Amino acid sequence: MKRFFEPETVALIGASSKQSHPGYQLFLNMKTCFGDRFYPVNPKTAKLDGTTCYPSILDVPAEIDVAVVFIPARAVPEALEQCAEKGIDRVVIESAGFAEAGPEGQAINERCLEIARRTGMRLWGPNCMGLINVQQTKVLSFLLNFLWKDRFKKGRVSLIVQSGMLSAGFLASILSRTPFGLSKIASIGNKMDVDESDVLEYLVDDPETGVIALYLEAIENGRRFYEVCRSTDKPIVVLKAGRTETGARAAMSHTASLAQDDRVVDGALRQAGVIRVHDMNDLLTIARCLGVAPVAAKSGGRIAVMVFSGGAGVVATDSIADRGIDLALLDDASMERLREVFPEWMEPANPLDLYPAIERNGAQRVVNHCLETLLNDPGVDGVFLHLFGWYPPEAFAGFERIAELSRKKKKPIVAWTMGDQEACDRLRQHLEAMGIPAVEEISKGIRVLSAMTSRR
Amino acid sequence: MKRFFEPETVALIGASSKQSHPGYQLFLNMKTCFGDRFYPVNPKTAKLDGTTCYPSILDVPAEIDVAVVFIPARAVPEALEQCAEKGIDRVVIESAGFAEAGPEGQAINERCLEIARRTGMRLWGPNCMGLINVQQTKVLSFLLNFLWKDRFKKGRVSLIVQSGMLSAGFLASILSRTPFGLSKIASIGNKMDVDESDVLEYLVDDPETGVIALYLEAIENGRRFYEVCRSTDKPIVVLKAGRTETGARAAMSHTASLAQDDRVVDGALRQAGVIRVHDMNDLLTIARCLGVAPVAAKSGGRIAVMVFSGGAGVVATDSIADRGIDLALLDDASMERLREVFPEWMEPANPLDLYPAIERNGAQRVVNHCLETLLNDPGVDGVFLHLFGWYPPEAFAGFERIAELSRKKKKPIVAWTMGDQEACDRLRQHLEAMGIPAVEEISKGIRVLSAMTSRR
Repeated sequence: MKRFFEPETVALIGASSKQSHPGYQLFLNMKTCFGDRFYPVNPKTAKLDGTTCYPSILDVPAEIDVAVVFIPARAVPEALEQCAEKGIDRVVIESAGFAEAGPEGQAINERCLEIARRTGMRLWGPNCMGLINVQQTKVLSFLLNFLWKDRFKKGRVSLIVQSGMLSAGFLASILSRTPFGLSKIASIGNKMDVDESDVLEYLVDDPETGVIALYLEAIENGRRFYEVCRSTDKPIVVLKAGRTETGARAAMSHTASLAQDDRVVDGALRQAGVIRVHDMNDLLTIARCLGVAPVAAKSGGRIAVMVFSGGAGVVATDSIADRGIDLALLDDASMERLREVFPEWMEPANPLDLYPAIERNGAQRVVNHCLETLLNDPGVDGVFLHLFGWYPPEAFAGFERIAELSRKKKKPIVAWTMGDQEACDRLRQHLEAMGIPAVEEISKGIRVLSAMTSRR
Repeated sequence: MKRFFEPETVALIGASSKQSHPGYQLFLNMKTCFGDRFYPVNPKTAKLDGTTCYPSILDVPAEIDVAVVFIPARAVPEALEQCAEKGIDRVVIESAGFAEAGPEGQAINERCLEIARRTGMRLWGPNCMGLINVQQTKVLSFLLNFLWKDRFKKGRVSLIVQSGMLSAGFLASILSRTPFGLSKIASIGNKMDVDESDVLEYLVDDPETGVIALYLEAIENGRRFYEVCRSTDKPIVVLKAGRTETGARAAMSHTASLAQDDRVVDGALRQAGVIRVHDMNDLLTIARCLGVAPVAAKSGGRIAVMVFSGGAGVVATDSIADRGIDLALLDDASMERLREVFPEWMEPANPLDLYPAIERNGAQRVVNHCLETLLNDPGVDGVFLHLFGWYPPEAFAGFERIAELSRKKKKPIVAWTMGDQEACDRLRQHLEAMGIPAVEEISKGIRVLSAMTSRR
């Protein structure tokens, strides 16, 4: 897999001169990333935007680590034969029209696999948008050039996505919302040969990857997938679609994936310590938060809740009970410290409603004092923090120290922001830059904290 | 209740000259809304921003429909006595420090109630942010003036919120996100006298209200609440916090509400046809969508799914099964019409993956043709529609006709948008203006469609 993600020389079979065509975006992206070590193939033109094109892959005057193929399905087998002749053994097929497109496509699929088996070639795809190494800026995908250039943020989260269109949607979502640090992105499509376990194994060993998120419609080799998941401490978040009977039927007609008994899948994922989600949004949110926060020291799942409104504390408490984790019991020393900032008529508790204390002592002092107390309590594994968007970031002066304490104690803080959208967006970015992930919904925040503090 | 929501003359006991004080925001808001028919009381000053202030409510030279009180709790009973003497029988108390603030506050609470009982006065609050009639621009709340002025959008959704801080958060959220048409907003706080059933009964009869959303920590009179919910066809969405044992305990310490057995509450709400949610975000999203879309003709819960990516269809199908509703079975006539735009190798189905048809016939023709077919199918009660943000609104030319058909057939369409945030926001506003609600998460979209098509 390393060669797929970290090639030095690359070729593109199917470079297109039509700007609206994915074959042109591929050309642009690979040219941008690999410069002189990129060799486009196009039998109809000698130059594309000033770059030499070769009539066939056999004419390329260099050794090629990875060839990307974007030509009609029926022409792919011949291209693969030529790749083999040229000694290329890593090929990414991004075009569609294979097993998902009826018997004719299925036959092409078989021919490709036969070539791969015979020549020792590994095939990526087809029917996918390829792969992206964000950390090393290597884009083997037709993702629109302007969408990623100057917009990628390097980070610890890697993605594996089975569906091609969704990979594009995921990326557009990620790049335009709260900045989200990425490492590798793998759109694996039909998984003719390379499957999720191959990629997962590589990412588990990848020092640039800290969190792995997967969108899958089928798990090809359940036993192997389970073993790879179990082999690591890196958090793995999985959205496995086709959970229900009707959903499984829909998946079958979509990517020709076989239905699987979800009770078996669910049990195995749970035993393997995987965090399972059921919606795209959850997948991205939880992966983003895990990529930002410190890894929890303990898996006790004991949560302290700090709110600016009693009502939010009640809803958070319900949500904690829903997830089967616990409200932390605060110890005597913590209670004593908390009392220092609260009025006499209000005994501190968990959930901790800050409002009466703030009326007396101001937000900055109270928030810092209470957060520090909760993080220092040995009975607390993580903190859920409610913030209103209208408190300006300055009100959180001193938060760097809190974030530092959270890292040192390995107790994650997850913030829930409410109120004016622009203010919330600003506040979220401010917090996440410090290592405090922030979400827009109480139940999502608790979901994230549960994932962080109660793994395995 | 009508007098609380539609007063002609109002007084404010506790007008403040300090701009940062809620008593000043109340002054500003009531002055803005009621002009000459607003009478502020402040014994320390004769004029505030050029408006005459009266030393006491007894000095006000007019009959008053509603008096708003924002003074320290201990001074409230005397103010109420004066109101009674003046013949005022509708009073909104917005200050805190009552039953939620220990035994002393509890005693003040009792005195206020005694006065109300003796004089026939109705008391709103305390510990709340009052009420707002958006349709008639009557703001009896300390909501910051700049937050609502020129930002309110009149519409069909009314809100009842128990918690004061959350009412503010809710409003800031609503006013800054996808425009959301509002009718009445009631922040009922401690519910010393006026409770959710009183307000609900009024809203059920209010011709300007089409959808009612409630955030409650306790239901005061379960039997009456149940009867009022049952008495109407208007959708009612309820977030009842304190569902779990620990949550109920947290609620008790917050608003001094008594714990209730949630199984009983849940059964009653279900029987009363109420849509129950567990998160603030869900409450606002579902209410907003119900306020935008046509009311479903049938409660069959049979959903057609139309996607631009097979994967999204699988996740939506799972989500439909999770909610216990059904994928619609398309009839022969529909299948025949759908085949017109699909390639031969791709038999249309539900979920309907549009991509192969779009590659052949373009998005505009395919989307319109397929949506029309689905809406005309007698086996379809509602449509879930996946859209990528990057399709510009122009691609949906002809959608007005689709929205019209959806209204005529009384079959709601709910859109799920994915991709670039700005593009999605624009697309959502465009769709909602036509009566097609749009959400950011598949499971929320299905939740909304389920609420719309399977009530009672």
